[in-house]
Amino acid sequence: MTKAKQPTILVVNDDGITAEGIKALMHVMKELGRVVVVAPDSPQSGMGHAITIGKPLRLDAVDLYDGIEMYSCSGTPVDCVKLAVNVIFKGVKPNLCVSGINHGLNNSINVLYSGTMSAAVEGAIEGIPSVGFSLDDYNAQANFDYCLKYIKELAMQVLQNGLPVGTVLNVNFPAGEPKGIKVCRQANAKWAEEFDKRHDPYKRPYYWLTGVFQNNDNGEDTDVWALNHNYVSVVPVQFDMTAHHAIPVLNSWKFNV
Amino acid sequence: MTKAKQPTILVVNDDGITAEGIKALMHVMKELGRVVVVAPDSPQSGMGHAITIGKPLRLDAVDLYDGIEMYSCSGTPVDCVKLAVNVIFKGVKPNLCVSGINHGLNNSINVLYSGTMSAAVEGAIEGIPSVGFSLDDYNAQANFDYCLKYIKELAMQVLQNGLPVGTVLNVNFPAGEPKGIKVCRQANAKWAEEFDKRHDPYKRPYYWLTGVFQNNDNGEDTDVWALNHNYVSVVPVQFDMTAHHAIPVLNSWKFNV
Repeated sequence: MTKAKQPTILVVNDDGITAEGIKALMHVMKELGRVVVVAPDSPQSGMGHAITIGKPLRLDAVDLYDGIEMYSCSGTPVDCVKLAVNVIFKGVKPNLCVSGINHGLNNSINVLYSGTMSAAVEGAIEGIPSVGFSLDDYNAQANFDYCLKYIKELAMQVLQNGLPVGTVLNVNFPAGEPKGIKVCRQANAKWAEEFDKRHDPYKRPYYWLTGVFQNNDNGEDTDVWALNHNYVSVVPVQFDMTAHHAIPVLNSWKFNV
Repeated sequence: MTKAKQPTILVVNDDGITAEGIKALMHVMKELGRVVVVAPDSPQSGMGHAITIGKPLRLDAVDLYDGIEMYSCSGTPVDCVKLAVNVIFKGVKPNLCVSGINHGLNNSINVLYSGTMSAAVEGAIEGIPSVGFSLDDYNAQANFDYCLKYIKELAMQVLQNGLPVGTVLNVNFPAGEPKGIKVCRQANAKWAEEFDKRHDPYKRPYYWLTGVFQNNDNGEDTDVWALNHNYVSVVPVQFDMTAHHAIPVLNSWKFNV
């Protein structure tokens, strides 16, 4: 990163183009380089790594904040990254892809369900250094102020150092002024789901997904631990999902076919 | 697995409840135990690990094939697994969860985009030994016959041996009689996307996602290699996405916050 040539930064999210979180993120990125925003035209929380195959996508230039290049997309967060890379940047990769700031945590197993993190993972698959940011506050009017200096510092480090091949950062902020940054592993946790069964006006049943986050991991090196102790958690995430340790186990099986 | 007590097998997919692939899978599973099918009421290819948060879900008992307990679900493949575990099985876990047979490959990076594999991963998160099956044939009338003996053998092995904690199997079949089974790692490959730009009758542009699968991995221990050489590929997949090797790299960074 030289003064002569500003880095280009792709900003995406899953809460939609009008969310407060992406507004905070794009403004802090403007201090670091040329910003291009491509975000869903509607909330896409929980969309994971979904892509749109069975129907076409819309991509429209919009002008919400003076001087920031912005596009609204009818697809998923991952669609936004694919369209940005192929249609907007036309194969000339941006120097950084940042996603968020998500209204709500994406620590631990949430990396799988999160559109915010899936967009960042897609950036990394495209070879772009990528980071997802999330805050432990689901409120639409959440206060992102104390996240901003950490986000700027992490983005600068990634622009300077790059990231190890095939990795992307999952950054989560606690609900309140953090004590600092902890590099962590993903905690072994899951959602204990419950479905709220209701009946529509025609007496037919329907179900709403609800659940309780259940931590099954006592480690002090996890993102859950860091957040519970008011640290910013930074988990390096990879998209090689091979369980390498399980290969010898499976090779010991005798297949009768 | 004793003769006295049959295993219970949850069958899911992403191509929808009327697909030929799930029909083939449920019939071979019937030879092994009590089958319960929970599948999307419409095609859900490319839905990845998406879950439905912003609207309610429908779950309706249907009777398509004599004697098989089946439910049609308005949600994603992962929603199907969550509803099965919580509403149908009411917390009493089935002994096995199988997903597919997908019409089309889910090898390599497709594990992220695939609803078939995400449903199997969700089964594993729930602690159920789980396997996703996919065939290299996108045709709605694909011939699954030569997959069946491999599927039966793999399912029997998983019922007998279980799977290493936190792993799920991603099984892909080549387009033609296989030479045998290879346990593999996920190949380093990606989609080189192109978007087909068109204009609607009102002259507004829209985009269709298209792409070419691009293998960047010369290893002979990958699923891409196995399939290209007419083997059934079996990749153990994990949902701890931590890039453990990157933790010391990040810990060497000096943060100025």
